[in-house]
Amino acid sequence: MSDDPQQHFGGTDEPKGDSGEGMSPDGAAMMRLIERLYPICRSITGNGVRQTLKILQEYAPLDITEVATGTKVLDWQVPREWNVRQAYIARLDGTKVVDFATHNLHVVNYSTPIDQTVGIDELRRHLHVVADRPDWIPYRTSYYSENWGFCLSQRQFGELTDPAYRVVIDSSLEDGHLTYGELLVPGRCDETVLISTHICHPSLANDNLSGIAVALALARHVSSIAPRYSYRFLFIPGTIGSITWLALNEHKIDAIRYGLVLSCLGDRGTVTYKQSRRGDAAIDRIVSHVLKHDGGDGRVVPFVPFGYDERQYCSPGYDLPVGCLMRSEPGKYPEYHTSADNPDLLSGSSLAHSAAILRQIIGVIEGNAITRNNSPKGEPQLGRRGLYRVLGGQSSVENAQMALLWVLNLSDGRHSLLDIAERAEMPFAAIRAAADSLCATDLLSLVDA
Amino acid sequence: MSDDPQQHFGGTDEPKGDSGEGMSPDGAAMMRLIERLYPICRSITGNGVRQTLKILQEYAPLDITEVATGTKVLDWQVPREWNVRQAYIARLDGTKVVDFATHNLHVVNYSTPIDQTVGIDELRRHLHVVADRPDWIPYRTSYYSENWGFCLSQRQFGELTDPAYRVVIDSSLEDGHLTYGELLVPGRCDETVLISTHICHPSLANDNLSGIAVALALARHVSSIAPRYSYRFLFIPGTIGSITWLALNEHKIDAIRYGLVLSCLGDRGTVTYKQSRRGDAAIDRIVSHVLKHDGGDGRVVPFVPFGYDERQYCSPGYDLPVGCLMRSEPGKYPEYHTSADNPDLLSGSSLAHSAAILRQIIGVIEGNAITRNNSPKGEPQLGRRGLYRVLGGQSSVENAQMALLWVLNLSDGRHSLLDIAERAEMPFAAIRAAADSLCATDLLSLVDA
Amino acid sequence: MSDDPQQHFGGTDEPKGDSGEGMSPDGAAMMRLIERLYPICRSITGNGVRQTLKILQEYAPLDITEVATGTKVLDWQVPREWNVRQAYIARLDGTKVVDFATHNLHVVNYSTPIDQTVGIDELRRHLHVVADRPDWIPYRTSYYSENWGFCLSQRQFGELTDPAYRVVIDSSLEDGHLTYGELLVPGRCDETVLISTHICHPSLANDNLSGIAVALALARHVSSIAPRYSYRFLFIPGTIGSITWLALNEHKIDAIRYGLVLSCLGDRGTVTYKQSRRGDAAIDRIVSHVLKHDGGDGRVVPFVPFGYDERQYCSPGYDLPVGCLMRSEPGKYPEYHTSADNPDLLSGSSLAHSAAILRQIIGVIEGNAITRNNSPKGEPQLGRRGLYRVLGGQSSVENAQMALLWVLNLSDGRHSLLDIAERAEMPFAAIRAAADSLCATDLLSLVDA
Repeated sequence: MSDDPQQHFGGTDEPKGDSGEGMSPDGAAMMRLIERLYPICRSITGNGVRQTLKILQEYAPLDITEVATGTKVLDWQVPREWNVRQAYIARLDGTKVVDFATHNLHVVNYSTPIDQTVGIDELRRHLHVVADRPDWIPYRTSYYSENWGFCLSQRQFGELTDPAYRVVIDSSLEDGHLTYGELLVPGRCDETVLISTHICHPSLANDNLSGIAVALALARHVSSIAPRYSYRFLFIPGTIGSITWLALNEHKIDAIRYGLVLSCLGDRGTVTYKQSRRGDAAIDRIVSHVLKHDGGDGRVVPFVPFGYDERQYCSPGYDLPVGCLMRSEPGKYPEYHTSADNPDLLSGSSLAHSAAILRQIIGVIEGNAITRNNSPKGEPQLGRRGLYRVLGGQSSVENAQMALLWVLNLSDGRHSLLDIAERAEMPFAAIRAAADSLCATDLLSLVDA
Repeated sequence: MSDDPQQHFGGTDEPKGDSGEGMSPDGAAMMRLIERLYPICRSITGNGVRQTLKILQEYAPLDITEVATGTKVLDWQVPREWNVRQAYIARLDGTKVVDFATHNLHVVNYSTPIDQTVGIDELRRHLHVVADRPDWIPYRTSYYSENWGFCLSQRQFGELTDPAYRVVIDSSLEDGHLTYGELLVPGRCDETVLISTHICHPSLANDNLSGIAVALALARHVSSIAPRYSYRFLFIPGTIGSITWLALNEHKIDAIRYGLVLSCLGDRGTVTYKQSRRGDAAIDRIVSHVLKHDGGDGRVVPFVPFGYDERQYCSPGYDLPVGCLMRSEPGKYPEYHTSADNPDLLSGSSLAHSAAILRQIIGVIEGNAITRNNSPKGEPQLGRRGLYRVLGGQSSVENAQMALLWVLNLSDGRHSLLDIAERAEMPFAAIRAAADSLCATDLLSLVDA
Repeated sequence: MSDDPQQHFGGTDEPKGDSGEGMSPDGAAMMRLIERLYPICRSITGNGVRQTLKILQEYAPLDITEVATGTKVLDWQVPREWNVRQAYIARLDGTKVVDFATHNLHVVNYSTPIDQTVGIDELRRHLHVVADRPDWIPYRTSYYSENWGFCLSQRQFGELTDPAYRVVIDSSLEDGHLTYGELLVPGRCDETVLISTHICHPSLANDNLSGIAVALALARHVSSIAPRYSYRFLFIPGTIGSITWLALNEHKIDAIRYGLVLSCLGDRGTVTYKQSRRGDAAIDRIVSHVLKHDGGDGRVVPFVPFGYDERQYCSPGYDLPVGCLMRSEPGKYPEYHTSADNPDLLSGSSLAHSAAILRQIIGVIEGNAITRNNSPKGEPQLGRRGLYRVLGGQSSVENAQMALLWVLNLSDGRHSLLDIAERAEMPFAAIRAAADSLCATDLLSLVDA
């Protein structure tokens, strides 16, 4: 099938940076998935989430879990399930002036049902706009406080000049379930890498859909490499979803060695890594290393207890080694949580670059090891093993040979290959390649970490 | 009484910075005390010190201790007591040309008695002037080497053209006492905060009197707050006074948890904190934190074994956590140790600001604690406890809510509220307020430090 | 004898910097030795090395060791001995166009013998030139791969236009010995300072001869001071020489407490110190300290496993505290490994300055100690011991008095005099002098380190 939606998904092309739109197959496939998911009205519960997860199952064998309303999860309870069929503001003559059918951001997420005529003054107390952007619609929620409301552009707001309007929100807020997806790619050991992304935002592209697309591509990549570590991918509603998963899956938590929350990975900004609460966890060092050698415009920012689900993973009772990988940070790009965070904001090249960075991170996680130099006194004679140039006297030595010398010098059982790469200021892949060359002789052994 | 000298002393207005002379009542009261003490001729012993301490007793119930000449104190002995009745240089016709009665800096402190006619060449070997400042009189001492001398302006020096002068110093250097003042404000525990200031300088305002005035204001403030810690205020002669107190009060030393030497706190310079010998003691962190959040023009400088009585408290046999709070540093402002260090050099605003900084420091000392999050797995649901905004989706969160999140995230029994304030880069008071809000629910407990 | 080659060698004049050529006797003596050694054709084995070591024996009682070809040394074997009698490229009419007799860099070091007519195309595959420098001859070696070759200037290369040439290398590559020199200056204890320099380069002045001359001067200096530590000087072929010494002298290695490889110490560049593998060894701190107080234009660079014999001493099986002292770094000055690295590149002032830096380093090694303040509570009364100025009140204190205060303040049995010098930001010599003054009273004692 020439238009197989899965074609190229999770591919391993390595496009760099953001310039030019000669889009890689990888980036194009992610864009197609995002455009497909964009129109769906998601929330922290409800049919939009179910529909989204079903589509993801076309690409990877996710398990879908339903958790009943009222289930006690840590300090919280699973809320009632919210669904909305239609919602609008109409003139008293019936003309709809704001309509959920045209954009699902128009209704405040988790609005209670209403069908009545409302005076303009009261109505305005339920309306939300974006300051300074006449055409953008904001995204607002009221999950834990019963209320109703509409979000609209300032232009629409200005046109509401009648004394009263009919307001209809045909929603339901009833006992049901919270739904999430989970995919385990088993490795050669039980130690786990956690990849978590939220799936609760309605028509928002960078915040939500980009993370879903990149996580899915990464899941497919990891499935293709017969990994050492096990990889657990979570597709969950923000906050209440991670709280629910943590509450119901205590037995899976201890095995987590590395973790990343993925979000906002498709815009044209440079990559930003937010450290775990620990700040010096292995994942923090690994991502910093990869960004440093990826052209150097990636940024590392410290943990703060605000953001995405790293807030839960990094709460003091868990303190998991989980950071957050983004391009632009939430709240720091103007389109954030507005109708302007749509597929036009994204770049296939950015998506592909984000996925490539993640593959490099996985490369370090998978490839890191402690090594031992079996000939630790003096330098071994590399020349007779075909590992050293023949003619002496030149001013400098090639990178590949420097990598050999660094690995030999620091393989004392106390340094990992990542330690060596950091001290040598060389990319991990170059150090790992040197270690592989040396392991092919009698000179180097891998030590169990 | 409308002109009660105590009125406003130790008040808690919080004027900021140095600009404008719309003086706070606090600053004005400190200026009045300084002007009252300024004319007295103090030294490391003698009646000027006694008179000064008596005046301080009008404001706070100081204990006054007299230690006899010859008492062995550490490596030293309490010296003979020095008092001076009159001192002058006169022409042979009796006209006084330099007179102690006009300025008590004119006589070298601890000068031995003399009454004789002296040739101009010999006289000049006993005279001291300030280079480059024709009208300023320097301050010189000769405590531990018997000598006599006069300090005078260059202008006066130039007028000494006669072949001989009559020199009179009617001083006494006799067995007597060293006198110091001490005030203990008891707290709920015996652990002690030491506040030390020197009282041995004659008519010098910034170096000496400003420290006395601010220390006294702080003592009155601390008395008003029913403190957790005990506060010990020392009003002592420099060097020999702290050595004497340390020698005679060994049993009080172990309880000292924090300490500050106060000096030069009234000039118009920015605040300078000199760290304790340890450099990383709690007091060092606390003062740095307070200065960082006080507009950021305060400076922190490392310990050096030269300066005020921190030299003694930080000697290796004690190594107490005692730093030194100043505005301009001794020796680094031109008026230092000259007649130009007089009340005109001071600003009531600076005095009030110095006192306000100290109240903030006390606020951290008193308010710091280890806290424990009682719901450490995931974030607790703040909304249902009235601690979180209702509407979701905005780009950012208010400072007060960020403070709540930081306290919850780091209250793992290993972080103090100061640790949290430092990591959050928020003022201690904001973090403490958040902790108080959370303690009022079931979510947070104080742990004994 | 007025022209005694040893005169002034190892003298202790302390010329500073590089400016002016009013050469010190010390620098001039080193220059004379370098000029004497320059014409000799050295290699990693052979008669040139023997001849060099014999000349050094005129200055200091080196032991010369011969190690037989084939001896197993760590991962290597001692190679066959190489000697060359003559070597040239001649036109077929017999005119020599490139001749070893005019410059010993012309033959690739360790070239195998050859005497045959060679076509121009084949000949060119055995020729080496310096890019961009028409008159310089490069230095090339082929120790461990049998080959022959010539090095020549681009100008000479351009003149090789005949279709064929006669090529003669009258060399021998036969079982023999590797030769090295060793000098132990015994100290009061067995703990050892290792000074190592390579002696295997032919006519190269900065890279090789400068290190030999400075090491020899240092050996003579150390012999004159009845040192606390023992000093072991190695004059060895690069790489294989240090490997051989390490393999045959295991019993001497454990005693090494400090070490320096010396090279490139005569050019006009500023001093560069390459740290040991550890990066925080005592030698690293000491050299950094000395350079910081030597005008501050010295540089400290981190260890990399490429360079001189520190590669072997810092291999993981030894991990010795050995750094490398240089002026310009190998490979980073244009004349490196070319005929332009000749005595004209050197400055007697630079050589003398390098030697002076090393004497300062030895001064710290010899003079460092842990000290204990015997009057640790409060400051002791320095005045009554004649160690403190008489008149008080001045703004500042002299350096010598600050040094006394620092030593007293930090002599708590946990700080060395080097620690104190670093914290005081004063030169080690000033701190040591203060400690000596205090030890002459009852106030300070040396503690065994």
